[in-house]
Amino acid sequence: MAPTLALVGATGAVGGVMIDIMNARESVPWGEIRLIASPRSAGKKMTVRGTELTVQALAPEVFDGVDIAMFDVPDEISAEWAPIAAARGAVAVDNSGAFRMDPEVPLVVPEVNLDQIANRPKGIIANPNCTTLSMMAALGSVHREFGLTELVVASYQAASGAGQEGIDRLQAELSAIAGKELGSVAGDVRTELERAGLPMADSPFAGAPLALNVVPWAGSLKEDGWASEELKVRNESRKILGIPELKVSATCVRVPVVTTHSLAVHATFEREVSVATAQKVFAEQASVVLVDDPTEGVFPTPADVVGGDPTYVGRIRQALDFPNTLDFFVCGDNLRKGAALNTYEVAEELAKTL
Amino acid sequence: MAPTLALVGATGAVGGVMIDIMNARESVPWGEIRLIASPRSAGKKMTVRGTELTVQALAPEVFDGVDIAMFDVPDEISAEWAPIAAARGAVAVDNSGAFRMDPEVPLVVPEVNLDQIANRPKGIIANPNCTTLSMMAALGSVHREFGLTELVVASYQAASGAGQEGIDRLQAELSAIAGKELGSVAGDVRTELERAGLPMADSPFAGAPLALNVVPWAGSLKEDGWASEELKVRNESRKILGIPELKVSATCVRVPVVTTHSLAVHATFEREVSVATAQKVFAEQASVVLVDDPTEGVFPTPADVVGGDPTYVGRIRQALDFPNTLDFFVCGDNLRKGAALNTYEVAEELAKTL
Repeated sequence: MAPTLALVGATGAVGGVMIDIMNARESVPWGEIRLIASPRSAGKKMTVRGTELTVQALAPEVFDGVDIAMFDVPDEISAEWAPIAAARGAVAVDNSGAFRMDPEVPLVVPEVNLDQIANRPKGIIANPNCTTLSMMAALGSVHREFGLTELVVASYQAASGAGQEGIDRLQAELSAIAGKELGSVAGDVRTELERAGLPMADSPFAGAPLALNVVPWAGSLKEDGWASEELKVRNESRKILGIPELKVSATCVRVPVVTTHSLAVHATFEREVSVATAQKVFAEQASVVLVDDPTEGVFPTPADVVGGDPTYVGRIRQALDFPNTLDFFVCGDNLRKGAALNTYEVAEELAKTL
Repeated sequence: MAPTLALVGATGAVGGVMIDIMNARESVPWGEIRLIASPRSAGKKMTVRGTELTVQALAPEVFDGVDIAMFDVPDEISAEWAPIAAARGAVAVDNSGAFRMDPEVPLVVPEVNLDQIANRPKGIIANPNCTTLSMMAALGSVHREFGLTELVVASYQAASGAGQEGIDRLQAELSAIAGKELGSVAGDVRTELERAGLPMADSPFAGAPLALNVVPWAGSLKEDGWASEELKVRNESRKILGIPELKVSATCVRVPVVTTHSLAVHATFEREVSVATAQKVFAEQASVVLVDDPTEGVFPTPADVVGGDPTYVGRIRQALDFPNTLDFFVCGDNLRKGAALNTYEVAEELAKTL
């Protein structure tokens, strides 16, 4: 019998992308599909695969008979409700941060560690943070080839990583400076924005302007000056790749891009690397697109990647002074592979096993 | 007698900043000041330190009697004319790339290797590339403390690094998307710009949009997929710091910021580092400003640094898995310390020795 699928958080930003993906990918013939959201959004009508569905309010009984429940909701909602869904017999695939580092919850990127989906004593599978996910399919492929030991990354993270609020803020900031002469506004962006009614205290970007700026902060403050996003990159990369001793340093920086996270990756391996082999490995990896022809000025940029499912990789170089190190640049749509798509891919793979 | 100073390239973008700096810093009482530019700009009047000066056309005889000649012109003009100025008795301080890696030309950042200004067999002193310069005062100070061995950097470079043309292009691109709904334009920036009469072939940013984007390319293609800017960071850092074997990997990325280059720096040292010591060293270094209080959300961003002379440093962390490594984020105005200011500081130091 075709499995029953629930989408919790159907009316949110990632939920909307999830429905687009469900409409575009028909490989799994779901039996019933249930859309679930907060009581406030209950009753709303949404069309999935040509059928109009009514959003149901989150409640224990909505999970009865559900085989797979995808969660795209804040950490605290997942923390409470994913176990309830699991107790009612569903496998919960959770895109929040609530369970990612739980040793009894696998953290799965299908291209890298699909075998982990079977090890789910809690009935919960976690989806990685979007920044980690944006490089993971690419990184996993070269890890298999060369054996990853060290990872230094600097991110270029999009506004939508902070949700719709992030997009709205960037839109408002760009509107406030539109038409102004950049040479004169550049030195006083903060004042210009505050004068336009956009106090920095209201910004989701750590109190700094994002228009005409970059902001070296993402997430909350953790020990020793690290931002939570930087520690997620380290800890989640170790867990997904299955390298508990992997050495990682990440610096996470927000940039005035709407959607698609990019990362400058400096990855060191057990063995000497070769650019030709890395290019071959990337090209052969499903869901990775090689965009790397420097003689033709071809490299990935976030604007060319928005809305796409794959991870795009280019600027692949063997580090001049580190023969075991590859430098490369990777772009991935943080709302698709970075969130909704990976969750849905896990659900598709689960469906094959039911 | 007070020395005679010439400024070649007085009417350019960096030349204008240079004149601002000369007006603001009165420590050296220059005798005569000569403004020099292409024949096309000759005759133009410009006011320096309260005196109206007439721009003279570049010619061998304009260097007669000049003690110090600062060059802010393209590589090929410097290559031809700096030796002529030197032959006529001036010390040429050149901000182009023509002489930076010449073993008979010192590459000087006063905070780091001021002693090198005396070793100038060609009568020429070179000023580093703006990306290298943006981190050098800060890096030099922690190098003296801990002994630098390896450097991994990712840059966030401003549009003005590509000159006035770069600023104008970013302005035009932002105007073309102004008022559009970001969610819909984000996936099609390239088409939107071309439709607005901004073909990608005309862009100074490697044929990619810079508005709502980041572009992992700066400069021209060199061997093995490296961009010239990335090799400059490596080779110039080695020369300035006096560490010929320094291991360096740089990824240079353009961001939609008007002015001020930022770098995420992962610097490894001979000795174990401490954040407290690094903060103290940065705070004590003249021309470096420590902006590092994560508990208060305090870190440097380019928008807060534009127009300032110092290098701003924050997000200082000891790498979790690399005890000898500091991660930090540095911002420097690429037109000031990154270009005009450093050149002028070298000229000031030279003036003391004449």
